[in-house]
Amino acid sequence: MKKKVVLTGDRPTGPLHLGHYVGSLANRVYLQDVYKQYVLIADMQALTDNYEHPDKVRQNVLEVVLDYLAVGLDPKKTTFFIQSQIPQIAELAVIYLNLVTINRLRRNPTVKNEIAQKGYGENVTAGFLMYPVHQAADITIVKGSVIPVGADQLPMIEQTNEIVRSFNHIYHTDILVESEPLISSTPRLPGIDGGEKMGKSLGNAIFLSDSSDVIVKKVMSMYTDPNHVHVNDPGKVEGNVVFTYLDIFDQNKDEVQELKEQYQRGGLGDVKLKKRLIEVLESFLLPIRLRREEFAKDKAEVMKILFDGSAQTVQVASETMREVHAVMKLDYFD
Amino acid sequence: MKKKVVLTGDRPTGPLHLGHYVGSLANRVYLQDVYKQYVLIADMQALTDNYEHPDKVRQNVLEVVLDYLAVGLDPKKTTFFIQSQIPQIAELAVIYLNLVTINRLRRNPTVKNEIAQKGYGENVTAGFLMYPVHQAADITIVKGSVIPVGADQLPMIEQTNEIVRSFNHIYHTDILVESEPLISSTPRLPGIDGGEKMGKSLGNAIFLSDSSDVIVKKVMSMYTDPNHVHVNDPGKVEGNVVFTYLDIFDQNKDEVQELKEQYQRGGLGDVKLKKRLIEVLESFLLPIRLRREEFAKDKAEVMKILFDGSAQTVQVASETMREVHAVMKLDYFD
Repeated sequence: MKKKVVLTGDRPTGPLHLGHYVGSLANRVYLQDVYKQYVLIADMQALTDNYEHPDKVRQNVLEVVLDYLAVGLDPKKTTFFIQSQIPQIAELAVIYLNLVTINRLRRNPTVKNEIAQKGYGENVTAGFLMYPVHQAADITIVKGSVIPVGADQLPMIEQTNEIVRSFNHIYHTDILVESEPLISSTPRLPGIDGGEKMGKSLGNAIFLSDSSDVIVKKVMSMYTDPNHVHVNDPGKVEGNVVFTYLDIFDQNKDEVQELKEQYQRGGLGDVKLKKRLIEVLESFLLPIRLRREEFAKDKAEVMKILFDGSAQTVQVASETMREVHAVMKLDYFD
Repeated sequence: MKKKVVLTGDRPTGPLHLGHYVGSLANRVYLQDVYKQYVLIADMQALTDNYEHPDKVRQNVLEVVLDYLAVGLDPKKTTFFIQSQIPQIAELAVIYLNLVTINRLRRNPTVKNEIAQKGYGENVTAGFLMYPVHQAADITIVKGSVIPVGADQLPMIEQTNEIVRSFNHIYHTDILVESEPLISSTPRLPGIDGGEKMGKSLGNAIFLSDSSDVIVKKVMSMYTDPNHVHVNDPGKVEGNVVFTYLDIFDQNKDEVQELKEQYQRGGLGDVKLKKRLIEVLESFLLPIRLRREEFAKDKAEVMKILFDGSAQTVQVASETMREVHAVMKLDYFD
């Protein structure tokens, strides 16, 4: 039996951070041994709201792939591809646009929220409103059937499957496959400021590529318990970001438990606690940083990985388009 | 100096008729000697409102190209291409979608009218609303600079040029060229029922491929002057479709003038008049019909013309996309 196809991806708008690792990258490193895995670098989607900053997008393509390689995604097991290099995605997206009404796109809760957040109001571009359709093309061009997502991304899978059903129904075929969401069970990693979400644009992230010095600085500024002023004051563990991180990254669960109890009783200072987290994060991030530096030495080799992955994807995508054209009677010259 | 590039096209939703000839095809036969001419068979655009009838679109691609060849469009001078076979058009359209707001698309007067006419209301598809963007991609992918249009199509050229200026401005380039409309000076050919416009879906058209018998039947049913009952009644020339057609297709202007006077005085019967028009149309359409039948004998050869034209267009389109990708910094592997 053919392996299921898993697709994930990132918008190359900045380097990846610990939040990406916990929420997605760790899972991808696992999934590459289970499924046929594609990882999409969504440069075209990044341009939908960065169209005036193509340099930024370009530069971050390299940063993002270095992050992938650094955490252990293996080009022998995972196919990396750059969205803009697969013309078949645009072809398929344009076909899908006929199967979706503008009103349906406007009702997409994820897009609706983003339009509100970004303050686009009535000036939303066609490209932005249509990005779920573009995503449906990303997924279906490689026949992705398992899509790891956060709960907030479920409307995207729903839109994709609606399009798949509609296409298959109209053209009396089953060439397109519906995809099932694989919802992450990992709790979201908070920002170092205690904010619910770590985000590159929120200024509260620890990047996979951060140096030791930067990690020290960021952990020392981390949100703990604002009422825990003196070492002997009892402190709160819940909402204390240092403990949240220790829970995730510290292998020694018993010691963390002891530290929590001591902190709650009073007698454990923030500085001591943070020094432990610095050590823990440093031992986690050091090998990642070293691998990253190693790969960064030979950028031509990294670009070759992207080139090869994109070329492989073009082959698969061409085959999908051949099937799509055939059922749409657009195979004039076959 | 490089020749200007002229682009026209048709949606392959039915065979072409005399209205197409008078309004556009005759001009294209002339233009192929003046400019570098592309003729687009817009199958993807036809699918935007025929997506459930791919067979109909497929079949009419062949009909339309037979009409082109029959009227004297010469594949040595004119490059014919099928829209769906040029993936670069979709790529460029998807890029353009970021440069246009949904509100701007909704304000397009041509699209607005069509949405009302077709009764789409709030259920308009994304594909239909964005078709002016797709058209902008059709035009600019071959760097079309002269676009023959009817006055009702001017908003399409305006939208194209807005996108061109916006793209060139954002990416600090001049690779895309604005296009100028070439507005037809020919009056519109009325339908045989006296309706303002001849249309394939209006049931009032004489097709270029109609047989002699069908022409006889259609001309005999033509709208003349409903008050001209007896031969000796004075008749009206204005609004009399037979005279409108004679004015256009009868080479002997003096005789037509005499007939008009006789008709207005009374003493000229509709049947006699129609027999003259039948002769005139038959002598105009016979060579077209014969050429059409000749080409239709070797469908493989006709498909080869389409294949070669599409392949040539892909080459030009790839070059345009190479330039587009370069200014957008998407030329990772060059």
